[in-house]
Amino acid sequence: MRTKIVLHTVGQILVIEGALLLIPAIVGLIYHEQASVIAFIIAACAAAAAGGMLLLIKPGKSSVYAREGFAITGLSWIFLSLFGCLPFVISRQIPDFVDAFFETVSGFTTTGSSILTDIESLDNAMLFWRSFTHWIGGMGILVFGMIILPLGGKRSMHILRAEAPGPSSSKLVPKMRDTAKILYGIYIAMSLTLLVFLLAGGMPLFDSLINVFGTAGTGGFSNHGASIGYYDNEYFEVVISVFMLLFGVNFSLYFLILLKRAGAAFKNEELHWYLGIVAFAVITIAININSLYGSLHQAVRHSFFAVSSIITTTGFGTMDFNQWPEYSRTILVLLMFVGACAGSTGGGLKVSRVILLLHTAKRSMRRMIHSRSVESIRFDGRIMEEETINTCLVYLTVYCLTTVVSIVLVSLNNLPFEVNVTSVIACINNIGPGLGMVGPAGNFASFSVMSKLVLTFDMLAGRLELFPVLFLFSIKTWRR
Amino acid sequence: MRTKIVLHTVGQILVIEGALLLIPAIVGLIYHEQASVIAFIIAACAAAAAGGMLLLIKPGKSSVYAREGFAITGLSWIFLSLFGCLPFVISRQIPDFVDAFFETVSGFTTTGSSILTDIESLDNAMLFWRSFTHWIGGMGILVFGMIILPLGGKRSMHILRAEAPGPSSSKLVPKMRDTAKILYGIYIAMSLTLLVFLLAGGMPLFDSLINVFGTAGTGGFSNHGASIGYYDNEYFEVVISVFMLLFGVNFSLYFLILLKRAGAAFKNEELHWYLGIVAFAVITIAININSLYGSLHQAVRHSFFAVSSIITTTGFGTMDFNQWPEYSRTILVLLMFVGACAGSTGGGLKVSRVILLLHTAKRSMRRMIHSRSVESIRFDGRIMEEETINTCLVYLTVYCLTTVVSIVLVSLNNLPFEVNVTSVIACINNIGPGLGMVGPAGNFASFSVMSKLVLTFDMLAGRLELFPVLFLFSIKTWRR
Repeated sequence: MRTKIVLHTVGQILVIEGALLLIPAIVGLIYHEQASVIAFIIAACAAAAAGGMLLLIKPGKSSVYAREGFAITGLSWIFLSLFGCLPFVISRQIPDFVDAFFETVSGFTTTGSSILTDIESLDNAMLFWRSFTHWIGGMGILVFGMIILPLGGKRSMHILRAEAPGPSSSKLVPKMRDTAKILYGIYIAMSLTLLVFLLAGGMPLFDSLINVFGTAGTGGFSNHGASIGYYDNEYFEVVISVFMLLFGVNFSLYFLILLKRAGAAFKNEELHWYLGIVAFAVITIAININSLYGSLHQAVRHSFFAVSSIITTTGFGTMDFNQWPEYSRTILVLLMFVGACAGSTGGGLKVSRVILLLHTAKRSMRRMIHSRSVESIRFDGRIMEEETINTCLVYLTVYCLTTVVSIVLVSLNNLPFEVNVTSVIACINNIGPGLGMVGPAGNFASFSVMSKLVLTFDMLAGRLELFPVLFLFSIKTWRR
Repeated sequence: MRTKIVLHTVGQILVIEGALLLIPAIVGLIYHEQASVIAFIIAACAAAAAGGMLLLIKPGKSSVYAREGFAITGLSWIFLSLFGCLPFVISRQIPDFVDAFFETVSGFTTTGSSILTDIESLDNAMLFWRSFTHWIGGMGILVFGMIILPLGGKRSMHILRAEAPGPSSSKLVPKMRDTAKILYGIYIAMSLTLLVFLLAGGMPLFDSLINVFGTAGTGGFSNHGASIGYYDNEYFEVVISVFMLLFGVNFSLYFLILLKRAGAAFKNEELHWYLGIVAFAVITIAININSLYGSLHQAVRHSFFAVSSIITTTGFGTMDFNQWPEYSRTILVLLMFVGACAGSTGGGLKVSRVILLLHTAKRSMRRMIHSRSVESIRFDGRIMEEETINTCLVYLTVYCLTTVVSIVLVSLNNLPFEVNVTSVIACINNIGPGLGMVGPAGNFASFSVMSKLVLTFDMLAGRLELFPVLFLFSIKTWRR
């Protein structure tokens, strides 16, 4: 392990965070929230100071390989969250450190699970920062770092691979820095469009910003206890539903559209499955909950919002789907696993992984029958490499193992089975709410410290797609 | 598909079943249960007649390949259950056909889930048959068929592969027929030993037989509503616990012992993991439930029984573990997935598959870091073929998919999440009881017809390790 370059890069990221922490300080100034302003300035200084000290470590000419890419990504996210939770602790708005850390990791990983029992009692500056972490984490802080920092070509490739979601990550253009610029360009343009739509519908600026951050990052933190249900406004719900789905699409498709190759973008196999799954879920859930809401119109409205919110792993709520019949609840839990498209801001297994697994399962059945058949799997018109398929199968295995071990550890809390299982699923897939106590109307406050740490680990592992985080926690990494 | 040889072989199996159905008729005669005797004789005649008619189809010289092996196994098990449930329906002891079919499949697949609300109201002949199906299904009816029928070498290999549990099935001796004889020899000898132990402890002959069938087949049907808890006898519990664990061991190890190569048998890696998992679960659960039972002795007693019962997928009960704290309940659900050893009478994923998956996950992490490392996986001292590893990964994928789809279908019943999830897990892993309504003190009676059929499918799919059953239900199989 080339520790120096790892620490140097983490230092760069912390300096960026120091700068970002000044934005909520400005929000605090506007709302005359003195204590919060001071908390943010202290945190900003701390992050910048720590980052500055790490920058003193000169990396020399050492290169970055997969190993360092994992370490940089894993450590950056942990340190980001450690410094990012300082404002909550210093201002005593979330006095407990573990709670503040949980909330911040939930923010950066765009999970949206909260330990807060009364969201609305927080300062506006805090609410802003909490949601702003979604926006930063959605596209990835290291991808952002690539734009403004002199990260070498090879270094950025291994980092992008470790930070970007999906079974295989590709560069849009030959230079990584340009790829990062394009991704953030699309991200900012879409976020601004959503902001305009919300403001046009009459939503206050502050609320609009919060909801843009939550939607764009597919995070789900809201500044109201009732989430989007607070507005009880169908226009907002439709706009947010549509944008959640849009942010759940692979961003390279938007790049294709920019290149005037919309035809190719719409032919994307993952997109078809994604929309197909959404349509199936919306229709069947609407039928299932029809009797609860009197009219099919209302049933579709709530079903569409919940499905978009869950499959994109955002976790906003309008209705408490925890109260819905078992079929709807189960379909929603299932969508938590599926997740959004690869290369989007959403979490979960990713639609393309699920399809790839389905194709592989089908092929294996055929192989068991015609034992010598050699057949390759086509996905999106291209033949998939066996290496990619194998990684995908292993990913599922590691994912199942991590989930199972986490459920066992959380079960020590002695909460109901449904809560243990869905809290882990909601965290590892970066959704936000689960069922029961952790449903849309509930929160994660009553878990023990150990469970909160396990769930925090799961959120990080889920966002970074397991390997960087597991790598950090493996003993062998730190030997020698 | 060479349909003729498939149907011919199914015919042979049905004739065997006709003969086996006369055994409970004798039990009925002893207990003067006239209606039951008649029901068994009618069912025996029906099975023999149907089998006889299928035997009229001359297979010619056609050979059996994997495709036919799957079809023979899948169809045999379905027809066995269709005719096996007739006595219950004819005698009107289980008047509903779907219920009777569920109960019979649960018997043959050694699941032990029951739709009966009052077990003790059944005739002794019925109770005998219900448990006897466990004993038949435990080692496999087709393996039994190989001993007495003139099945050609190639045919039996493909059938054994489809019926025997575990990631890879090996012949003990060059001739399949001899392998089958050895397996049944060990099975019968161990069953008789258990019978002697139970009789020696003072258990009535009838109860002893029922419990031998349930233990040897790792099934779990009892003739008492309180299962083994009915006796409240620590001697019986220890004997049955130990024998459940013994029947969960790979039978080829017993063959090694017979060959006086006990050293090699005890070095088996799967055995070490199996015993290690049992020890870990027994100890931690005992600590977890200690406060419930006052003394550590009692806690260990109940923990040992529950762990042995669940990991071997038997499903006998002494205490209602559904009432235990969440940690214990979760560990038990986890053991349901792990299951017993490959080549035993138990179900589940099998310990060796779980280890293989763990090894593969570890290797992939190493590969992601040293991208060009070529490394093979060693299991039990031998290098595993990549083909076996791949099949194992696909198995997990298909297994997860089947489980998830089943949970969605069962959720239409609108029963609690815990019940939906654990009923499917209990059925696909051939355990018996789950949590909540389907816990050790409950039953499967309140499910809808559709859910019962889904769970029946899961029991068959789990027992035959998915592929033969999925193959039967695939459209392509029957095209042309």
